[in-house]
Parts: sequence; structure tokens; C-alpha cells
Amino acid sequence: MTFHPVPYRPARLPDDEALARAASLRQRMEARRSVRMFSADPVPERAVLDAIAVASTAPSGAHQQPWTFVLVTDPDVRRRLREAAEEEERISYGGRLGEAWLDALRPLGTDAVKPHLTDAPYLIVVFQQRFALDEDGGVRKHYYVDESVGIAVGMLLTALQVAGLAALTHTPSPMRFLGELLGRPRNEKAFAVIPVGYPADDCVVPDLRRKSLDEVLVRI
Amino acid sequence: MTFHPVPYRPARLPDDEALARAASLRQRMEARRSVRMFSADPVPERAVLDAIAVASTAPSGAHQQPWTFVLVTDPDVRRRLREAAEEEERISYGGRLGEAWLDALRPLGTDAVKPHLTDAPYLIVVFQQRFALDEDGGVRKHYYVDESVGIAVGMLLTALQVAGLAALTHTPSPMRFLGELLGRPRNEKAFAVIPVGYPADDCVVPDLRRKSLDEVLVRI
Ligand SMILES: N[C@@H](Cc1ccc(O)c(I)c1)C(=O)O
Ligand SMILES: N[C@@H](Cc1ccc(O)c(I)c1)C(=O)O
Repeated sequence: MTFHPVPYRPARLPDDEALARAASLRQRMEARRSVRMFSADPVPERAVLDAIAVASTAPSGAHQQPWTFVLVTDPDVRRRLREAAEEEERISYGGRLGEAWLDALRPLGTDAVKPHLTDAPYLIVVFQQRFALDEDGGVRKHYYVDESVGIAVGMLLTALQVAGLAALTHTPSPMRFLGELLGRPRNEKAFAVIPVGYPADDCVVPDLRRKSLDEVLVRI
Repeated sequence: MTFHPVPYRPARLPDDEALARAASLRQRMEARRSVRMFSADPVPERAVLDAIAVASTAPSGAHQQPWTFVLVTDPDVRRRLREAAEEEERISYGGRLGEAWLDALRPLGTDAVKPHLTDAPYLIVVFQQRFALDEDGGVRKHYYVDESVGIAVGMLLTALQVAGLAALTHTPSPMRFLGELLGRPRNEKAFAVIPVGYPADDCVVPDLRRKSLDEVLVRI
């Protein structure tokens, strides 16, 4: 394949419109929290699908788009997934994480019980394609896979928040069981498990502080 | 530190509003392209700052927020940064990447010349804090740094696109020179260089195809 250039001439927004859109998204995103207590209430499915489509617009190394989004609603699969995750987490919280890590997690109030895996109406399991598997069994290298899939997940979480849906970015480690349970091919590796829904009526979150813009920005 | 729970009761959007917002963001994001030919025209700075603030709302391992955004406008620093990047890229394109990688890049039409590093009005260099450096020189482990910073960059790119600004996710590898040139501490490692601005009037992009939702989605 060679380079086929096409013009790219997106309409410019007037400055005041650009500023208003950026400010409004910032306000919306600053209200986002990772949620671990979900309502079972249904959410509009098309909004979840659109959010996955947004994720799939992410840039990627060599435009390889090395991601698969597994949307799990089957209650039986969800139950088995939760059991396997909680089994790993019991080992993790039981000592595998080590003292420093457990200390770092204490303010979050997390433990090995993971109701969000069965309670939220949707579960998106994001897989990264570590390499390409051709139909004839051939293998091709993928570039910047972690970066690309991370960026796609950032777009996914933004879209969910914009649509008023709550989510959690969860990594029930080690995550090997996810590929096995969901029948993913050997080139795919789980990146995160993302329950999606509305917060439960009695939802609580840890009282955390975000860094201010000044704390994360350096100007040169 | 211990767990201090606070209620989280975000207002629910009506279904039609949730659907409209998700659909509108999807449409906007599907129009995004990685841009390598920038106009020197100024863009509203507050929109860029708001986009960085959006990035900094990302979830992160143990809520460590392991990111620094260096916003570079100084022309002299930009020039040196471009020279250093192009020096690395000449070695890369001259053979360091290898045949398979160069083949994978051919459809993008990229080469070692990187005008966007000096032409775009803003350059955001994103650093990941591989570990925490305390004031007394102590070191603390950070968790899921690649994932967290990738997600933050996905939020950044979404916010820029929503504000009508074009960007490129660029990795002029190896990226060591970036920390040296920008005087970053030893716990920080460059993740990507992101020029931001409007596309040049004669901007072209490769004629690439995105995977459809069907190609990236699996339902269970
Ligand atoms: N860093 C080089 C090469 C390059 C370019 C694009 C891309 O998707 C990948 I993977 C690599 C450059 O920036 O030209
Ligand atoms: N995977 C465990 C532990 C955990 C939790 C939160 C977090 O930010 C980090 I880093 C780890 C769990 O999900 O409980």
C-alpha cells in the first residue's frame, strides 16, 4: 500500500464557540467519578454503542486499530466472570498486592467483592490485540498497542460521561481469565473491565481530590 | 489515609437527551483526523487549557494522577525540539525501524521531516510519572501508569476535537531527548508529543478507512 492523500478541510469554529464547547466539556468531565455501586436500571443501549464507536475513532500506531470491545449482558457469563474476578481479588487483597499497594488503595475503600460486575446493565471488556492474527495463522506486529488502546478507552469514558452514564475502569488482575471466559483469540489481552449504568440510589464514592490544572501543567 | 465515603447522586439525563449527546459526540469524533500539516493561525488558548484540564479528570491507578502536561510555545525550544526529533526520525526511517515497520507506515506517508513541531501554535508534551518522587528524594510506586496516562490522552484528544482543534499524537522515538530538553525530573518519561492548531489550508491526510462498529464489537 502507498500513500493516497486526500484534502482535510474541517470547518473552523468561531472562537467563542470553541471556548464554550471546551468549557462545557470540562465542567461535565469534572463531575465524573468512578462508580462501584450501580443501579440495575436499564440505560439506553444506543448510547453505549455510540460510546464504543467513539472509542474506535482513536488514533493508533500505524492505524492498526488494535482493539476489541466485548459487550457482555448474558447474566450467566456475568456471574461466572464475577466469580473468577473475585477469586483473583481475594488472593490480591489477601496479600498478593503487598503492603505498599494495599496502603495506596486504602482511601478508595475497595475490597474483593465486586457487585458491579453483575449489577450494572452493561459490561464492556476491552481487549488489546497484541499482534495481528491473519486468517492463515500468520502473525503481524502491532505498534504502540498500550498507548492506542489507552487512548481509545479515554475516548470511551468521555463519551459515556457525556451521555450521562456512570462507569468504572476496573482491572481484576491478573486478567487472563477474561480472555478464556469470553473466548478471545490468543492475540488478545484484556485491558480493562468497564461496567456501565446509573449509580445506585445509595451510591457513595471516596472523598478524593483532583489535582488542579496548575499542578499538572508546565508552561515553557 | 482511610476511606471517607461521600454520596454521589448525579442527575440522570432523559433517555432522548442521553441518546442525542452520544450521537452528536460520535458524529463529531468520526470527523477527527490526525493532522501533520498545521496553519500558524492562533487558536483560543483557554480551549487548550480546558482540554488539558479535561485530560486531568481521567481515572488513574490508586488515583495517583501520574501525568504532567508541558505546554511548549517558546519558539527557540520548539526549534531545538524539532531538530532533536528529526535527528532521531532520520535514524528511524533510515533503517532502525526495519522493513516490516516501514511497510506498515507507508500508507501514512510519514517521513523524518516534522514541521508540525514548530508550525502548530501549541505543542503539548505529555509525560508519565513512572513513580512518585517525594520532596526528600523518597520514591513511591505508581500503578497502571501506561493505562492511566493513555486514558488521559484519550480525554485530551476528545476535548480538542470537541473544541474544533486539530492535533497529532506523535511519538518521535526514542523519546528520551524530550525529558532532557524540557528539564523534566527523572521520574517522568515522555508519552507523546501533541501539536495543536488548525489544519493548514492545503492540509492533506492519508485516505484511511476506520473499522466499523461491527468489526470492533462482540456481543455476549
Ligand atoms: N515515530 C515516527 C514513525 C511512526 C509514525 C506513525 C506511526 O503510527 C508510527 I507506529 C510510527 C514518526 O512519527 O514519523
Ligand atoms: N484490582 C483491584 C485492586 C485495585 C483497585 C483500584 C485501583 O486503583 C488499583 I491500582 C487496584 C480491585 O479492582 O479492587
